[in-house]
Amino acid sequence: MEVQLRKAQKEDCPRLLELVKELAEYEKAPKEVTVSIGEFESAGFGENPVWEAYVAEIGGQVVGMALYYIRYSTWKGRRLYLEDIIVTEKHRGQGLGKLLFDKVLNISKEKGYSGMVWQVLDWNEPAINFYKKYNTTIEDGWLNASISHN
Amino acid sequence: MEVQLRKAQKEDCPRLLELVKELAEYEKAPKEVTVSIGEFESAGFGENPVWEAYVAEIGGQVVGMALYYIRYSTWKGRRLYLEDIIVTEKHRGQGLGKLLFDKVLNISKEKGYSGMVWQVLDWNEPAINFYKKYNTTIEDGWLNASISHN
Repeated sequence: MEVQLRKAQKEDCPRLLELVKELAEYEKAPKEVTVSIGEFESAGFGENPVWEAYVAEIGGQVVGMALYYIRYSTWKGRRLYLEDIIVTEKHRGQGLGKLLFDKVLNISKEKGYSGMVWQVLDWNEPAINFYKKYNTTIEDGWLNASISHN
Repeated sequence: MEVQLRKAQKEDCPRLLELVKELAEYEKAPKEVTVSIGEFESAGFGENPVWEAYVAEIGGQVVGMALYYIRYSTWKGRRLYLEDIIVTEKHRGQGLGKLLFDKVLNISKEKGYSGMVWQVLDWNEPAINFYKKYNTTIEDGWLNASISHN
């Protein structure tokens, strides 16, 4: 099994959104994905792009992705925010998540950011155990607040 | 008491960092503020600025600030992330926080984002009660994870 990691291109967007929806089902919230393909593409590849991503390919098929953007901490400065790391169900347990995670961690270092940050659901033990193999700080006590404009 | 809200300028950065440090003391983590004034200024006013802020002024003195940036949700698209909203102790209880919050909420709508998001500490009841006056969704169950590169 040969895995290729490469930067995501505009043409990958429909497949990336499929993977996003697959993760949303795993997180028990499939209806929460309301972003349109147009907004997704323009935010990644239009003027002033917001996000970047890497994809994992096997035999020309995209089977995993890691999507990230810059976050600004007034305590720590610029940090890489890892929004999503997703491997399609059929290819889990083959180390692809780790390949993607390590890639993004390296990008964060190379860009000179002060660190990499992300969120994990408190019941997602496999993920938490994976992150603990790194020098990861996991913090509770914060609530996510949001106001929707729709 | 006349309050002026205006966009933050580069010259405001030293004062903004003072306010950041004041909030860090309130959150019981004063030593966590390690960002330098150079990094802070260049992230706000250099090439490819990451953050923007509004300040509240009384008699030419900056007494409050709200700092935000774009966050990308693969579920909801572009959203405004409110990183900090800070009013100096002497001027709390005068409605300045609400002025700043409403300003940033309006910016988020005007920019066409799908919503505004932020985090709040679970023990910070005054803040939570304030947010609940809006149509705010407050979600627990997420842990903040980070790897520092220093």
